[in-house]
Amino acid sequence: MSLNIKPIADRVVVEAAPAEEKTAGGIIIPDTAKEKPQKGKVVAVGNGKKDEPLTVKVGDTVLYGKYAGTELSYEGAEYLIMRESDIYAIL
Amino acid sequence: MSLNIKPIADRVVVEAAPAEEKTAGGIIIPDTAKEKPQKGKVVAVGNGKKDEPLTVKVGDTVLYGKYAGTELSYEGAEYLIMRESDIYAIL
Amino acid sequence: MSLNIKPIADRVVVEAAPAEEKTAGGIIIPDTAKEKPQKGKVVAVGNGKKDEPLTVKVGDTVLYGKYAGTELSYEGAEYLIMRESDIYAIL
Amino acid sequence: MSLNIKPIADRVVVEAAPAEEKTAGGIIIPDTAKEKPQKGKVVAVGNGKKDEPLTVKVGDTVLYGKYAGTELSYEGAEYLIMRESDIYAIL
Amino acid sequence: MSLNIKPIADRVVVEAAPAEEKTAGGIIIPDTAKEKPQKGKVVAVGNGKKDEPLTVKVGDTVLYGKYAGTELSYEGAEYLIMRESDIYAIL
Amino acid sequence: MSLNIKPIADRVVVEAAPAEEKTAGGIIIPDTAKEKPQKGKVVAVGNGKKDEPLTVKVGDTVLYGKYAGTELSYEGAEYLIMRESDIYAIL
Amino acid sequence: MSLNIKPIADRVVVEAAPAEEKTAGGIIIPDTAKEKPQKGKVVAVGNGKKDEPLTVKVGDTVLYGKYAGTELSYEGAEYLIMRESDIYAIL
Repeated sequence: MSLNIKPIADRVVVEAAPAEEKTAGGIIIPDTAKEKPQKGKVVAVGNGKKDEPLTVKVGDTVLYGKYAGTELSYEGAEYLIMRESDIYAIL
Repeated sequence: MSLNIKPIADRVVVEAAPAEEKTAGGIIIPDTAKEKPQKGKVVAVGNGKKDEPLTVKVGDTVLYGKYAGTELSYEGAEYLIMRESDIYAIL
Repeated sequence: MSLNIKPIADRVVVEAAPAEEKTAGGIIIPDTAKEKPQKGKVVAVGNGKKDEPLTVKVGDTVLYGKYAGTELSYEGAEYLIMRESDIYAIL
Repeated sequence: MSLNIKPIADRVVVEAAPAEEKTAGGIIIPDTAKEKPQKGKVVAVGNGKKDEPLTVKVGDTVLYGKYAGTELSYEGAEYLIMRESDIYAIL
Repeated sequence: MSLNIKPIADRVVVEAAPAEEKTAGGIIIPDTAKEKPQKGKVVAVGNGKKDEPLTVKVGDTVLYGKYAGTELSYEGAEYLIMRESDIYAIL
Repeated sequence: MSLNIKPIADRVVVEAAPAEEKTAGGIIIPDTAKEKPQKGKVVAVGNGKKDEPLTVKVGDTVLYGKYAGTELSYEGAEYLIMRESDIYAIL
Repeated sequence: MSLNIKPIADRVVVEAAPAEEKTAGGIIIPDTAKEKPQKGKVVAVGNGKKDEPLTVKVGDTVLYGKYAGTELSYEGAEYLIMRESDIYAIL
């Protein structure tokens, strides 16, 4: 699903996947124990910087730092807008 | 609506949209709870930097950081003047 | 009016416009309330940096940060000398 | 063994070799005494940056700083994702 | 008057003009009140940096920051050696 | 003697020469008095950075800062791995 | 006199001239009063950086900052090794 937003330059908009808040045995992990990278889906990408097109595409599932980006509310849903350099890898 | 100001280099002038200060039920949100990006309309743009033309155009609705830019009074109205890199995305 | 000074590289000399220290009703605004950009007239410009000519010209009315530049006394008058990047926009 | 992850730009995914936690005489070394570089195996590499392809390849055994990279859980195993510049040498 | 010193790269040697320490009425201004740029005469210049020749020439009268440069005693006289970027303008 | 390690980019591996811990009269110098550059032998070099091949070669005796580099144990011996810019000179 | 050391890149080795510790009347100046640039003779130079050959040559008498460089003992004599950018001028 693509989003009707055009990020500037090397920015991308990501829809975060819900954190898996239960362990195998069903125990709820408190928030401070979840410092690993977050997973999300790219919903909008910029045009990149001069001579540096972006690597990620709309629809990619990506890993990014837990504290990456800025929250963005758009048409009732929540997204993150971040620079591509905040993304570690495409799954 | 265009503004008769010529920003230097990669600067743009933005007219902020009024913050939506009420929730659905009509409760007023105190100022400290509104840290999400601000929406605004571009009213003047610079010529960009050497070999890097600007992406935003006059008339674009943009999202930018809550603390981006410098306030500017011009002919009785209030604007913000900021660098394009302070703008996250075009809506 | 041009000034017989040749600023180096990307520097410009600006003659500040007097601050409008009264509101419509004639109330004097104390100095700490005037943090908005200052207006001034460019009276001398440098040759720019390598491959980056300046945008402002002698005679332009410009907006610049309240604390931009260094004061300069020259032949009995007061000026500011600043880098072009301290200038926000040409009016 | 290669991993089905595509790191962005100059990032690589490394599977850490288990630290040798016993000395010749079988004494357990406490964690704070193991500040030397860590050894690991590269399991995924990015495409490098513009005009700078990566030097390390999948399958290389590498030395990297003890605190390099970010932990990454993937399909039940633990990895580190880091920039190539965090890697000191290929063994 | 030229000085027999060859500054390296973008450095210049300046002979400071004596500060005008009296006001019109002959009152001596204490040192802390003289924060405006200093005037001086260029007596030696370097060859500039790669592809960036210097703008100032020997004999130019220049304005520079009050705290610019390093003092230099040479054959009984006092000079300042500074980078061209510490010079604001040529008079 | 060359070492079977391939440093990344501009890194080199150095085997430190033993510090001369006695003065002419045989007095032992305490460790804090030995802040001068260290001498060592280069045992492995990287390929340099883009368009910047390395100057030092395997077998060179080099001087480097006392605190340069990271310790590296390899096959029972101790080495230092550092960037070429941490090396002052070749003897 | 040249020294058999090859500094790396933009580094040079300088033999400091003895400080003139007496004034005309023979009064000894305490060390804290000698903050002016030091004089010395260049005894070894590097090959410069990519596309930037060095300006100073072996045999040049140079002025450099009082705290520039790192001390270096070599065959019983004391030298300073510094970057060319720590040198102000050639006398």
